[in-house]
Amino acid sequence: MRALRVAVLGCGSVGSQVVRLLDEQAGDLTARVGAPVELVGVAVRRLDAARDVEVPEGLLTTDAAGLVARDDVDLVIEVIGGIEPARSLILSALENGASVVTANKALLAEDGPTLFEAAEKAGRDLYYEAAVAGAIPILRPLRESLAGDRVTRVLGIVNGTTNFILDKMDTSGAGFAEALEEAQDLGYAEADPTADVEGFDAAAKAAILASLAFHSRVTANDVYREGISEVTAADVQSARDMGSVVKLLAICELMPQAGADDAVAVRVHPAMIPRSHPLASVREAYNAVFVESEAAGQLMFYGPGAGGSPTASAVLGDLVTVARNRLAGTRGAGESAYADRAVLPMGETRTRYHVAIDVDDRAGVLAAVATAFAENGVSISTVRQEGRGLDAELVVVSHEATDAQLSATVQHLREMDIVREVTSVMRVEGDHE
Amino acid sequence: MRALRVAVLGCGSVGSQVVRLLDEQAGDLTARVGAPVELVGVAVRRLDAARDVEVPEGLLTTDAAGLVARDDVDLVIEVIGGIEPARSLILSALENGASVVTANKALLAEDGPTLFEAAEKAGRDLYYEAAVAGAIPILRPLRESLAGDRVTRVLGIVNGTTNFILDKMDTSGAGFAEALEEAQDLGYAEADPTADVEGFDAAAKAAILASLAFHSRVTANDVYREGISEVTAADVQSARDMGSVVKLLAICELMPQAGADDAVAVRVHPAMIPRSHPLASVREAYNAVFVESEAAGQLMFYGPGAGGSPTASAVLGDLVTVARNRLAGTRGAGESAYADRAVLPMGETRTRYHVAIDVDDRAGVLAAVATAFAENGVSISTVRQEGRGLDAELVVVSHEATDAQLSATVQHLREMDIVREVTSVMRVEGDHE
Repeated sequence: MRALRVAVLGCGSVGSQVVRLLDEQAGDLTARVGAPVELVGVAVRRLDAARDVEVPEGLLTTDAAGLVARDDVDLVIEVIGGIEPARSLILSALENGASVVTANKALLAEDGPTLFEAAEKAGRDLYYEAAVAGAIPILRPLRESLAGDRVTRVLGIVNGTTNFILDKMDTSGAGFAEALEEAQDLGYAEADPTADVEGFDAAAKAAILASLAFHSRVTANDVYREGISEVTAADVQSARDMGSVVKLLAICELMPQAGADDAVAVRVHPAMIPRSHPLASVREAYNAVFVESEAAGQLMFYGPGAGGSPTASAVLGDLVTVARNRLAGTRGAGESAYADRAVLPMGETRTRYHVAIDVDDRAGVLAAVATAFAENGVSISTVRQEGRGLDAELVVVSHEATDAQLSATVQHLREMDIVREVTSVMRVEGDHE
Repeated sequence: MRALRVAVLGCGSVGSQVVRLLDEQAGDLTARVGAPVELVGVAVRRLDAARDVEVPEGLLTTDAAGLVARDDVDLVIEVIGGIEPARSLILSALENGASVVTANKALLAEDGPTLFEAAEKAGRDLYYEAAVAGAIPILRPLRESLAGDRVTRVLGIVNGTTNFILDKMDTSGAGFAEALEEAQDLGYAEADPTADVEGFDAAAKAAILASLAFHSRVTANDVYREGISEVTAADVQSARDMGSVVKLLAICELMPQAGADDAVAVRVHPAMIPRSHPLASVREAYNAVFVESEAAGQLMFYGPGAGGSPTASAVLGDLVTVARNRLAGTRGAGESAYADRAVLPMGETRTRYHVAIDVDDRAGVLAAVATAFAENGVSISTVRQEGRGLDAELVVVSHEATDAQLSATVQHLREMDIVREVTSVMRVEGDHE
């Protein structure tokens, strides 16, 4: 029985766990694949770097391009990350007839179609479960389990760093800066936390989720993005006052269009969700993806969203499928973008806002504020008035309107004499009372 | 492009939704499969029964055997349920070269191997995602996503009826009989609720989950089973007092064996789990499956566990995969029982007990009770003493011991003079303080 030969590109936190599992689970992998899986090379930047795993003698190489060009490699695992050289290496691997498993969300979100076309042309598999929400099986359920259903909405907590920070702000009352510092001390946030806290990482994952859920091409550029660095302790308290919690959500939705096919709206931003929502109980650095579909109803997938070992589990799950396909001389379903839905700009996306306003406590204030909403075409769901005199505060939650209308309403409020300050503006998701 | 021809066996709550979705999603199914999917027959018991869907003229038949024997049927969907005639029909369909999708947990748990062997021999697919936890994708993740990992434990709330009843008992303080009646009034429980409340339904699902998780053959007979009809309001209150909640759990675990391969323990019984456990927040008739694996860590899958439309979503997801395989001239991975693990009897399975005891309030009582535990080789984790005088109660939570040791301890306690009554005995899962 011929062994399937695997090359691993990258031996950092994920790659080293992949190498470890390939060794430790060798017997099980052989039984599950139907043939032995043999590691034939590991490409690294520096041969002498410290590693979490002992790579067998002679397998390490700094020549990644040479490794993927070898004609005896059946399967390539790319866990380098970033756009280049990862893209060139994956394309070269496919051209040389290898099947590819990758965890590279940035590359897939930026230039997925190029990779999918290359896989299609080569007749090989390109699998990437590990790219979204680490070990949580979510891409395969979207792509396969729900293939007979119509997904209408995906709401995900897909970035562990920001969830840890927001959870800390919620439980301790800390501000953003303090919570970020704690996340950095504990290793949940990087020294330069931009990719996480500004939502770039979540936006890449949102693009991948939306593409699969709606059978359309959505890239990172199509995703509206706001991070959590502007979320204040006052926002978190305001959420708490209405029985909600602030989460950074990746939201992918079908949006009905008059006289046309449903469009797709994809966005990443902090939002208030009710504490009774299943996503509200996702604590610390955990991830979860909540899916709504016509026939299945509401599903949730929960687990560790990052980390070397969980991510390696997802990579190896893909590897087993790809290896089985290889042995059977077939390939899995390729990407499907047949629905070809339009992506809606954020301004046209329908959302709901929570707005807290410091106002002068005098007669007619509520009427004036209500008029400002009405003039912008936004209807109000609830108003709560708190305090009196100098501390008077109005908290308004709107009904659904376009994000442009809601944003114009806030601008309008800011310009009103009776409004001393708009103290908190945040979108709202889920059913609030 | 040749259409793939589908026969549906059964047109009850699930079958009628399958027929509806096949029609409503026809365009999407064609795009996702790569060929049209055409309904060619629906087998029913009576032609004139009331149905939730209008079946196209001429497709209804009472001759199920004739339908699966037709040589122009590519795919057969079995949603009749029960052992016969479902088994004969599935075997006949496979022999005739059709691929099969079924939701039949009872049949799979009783006689799965016969079906798997028939599928293997015919070179056809047999898929059954809908058999466990309705719309929740759990079998595919176990079988495929976690194929490169080592699953150590599966804890599932896989029966909606009993979860509804226990949730009601927890939130309202009702007893079992009252909560069951409400479940029956609301349509969550059947007139004869035995299969649900005595754990038979959950045990069938546990057998299926254990087989997939541990790559071994586990049948319904291998599953230790206790239902919830003996759970009292006092048990639920006792759980509440220690920050826990009572759930009917399907538990599938690897159990280390000295000097031998890990064995498998599979059981269904009510258990107290801490309210902080992700499964504790599964309310009403929802289902959830919690999976622990070596590399991925803790995952949870949550959603509606029953109902015509959710179950039909799972059936159609399988149908798309099976149809794609058919077009590609291949089949998915068959069942794998290579690990061939032994199934441990309940007595040898390691568990933990919660025991509440009415005792005489006199000196030496605690020492006597502690001695009873020690003499049976069980060590105590926590003891809580409540009340005084006639109302004195001891609540003991043990450390792990074999179920036989724990059961003997309870018997021993019942025979002690100072013990007036053992008021609550229940197994405990998850990390309690």
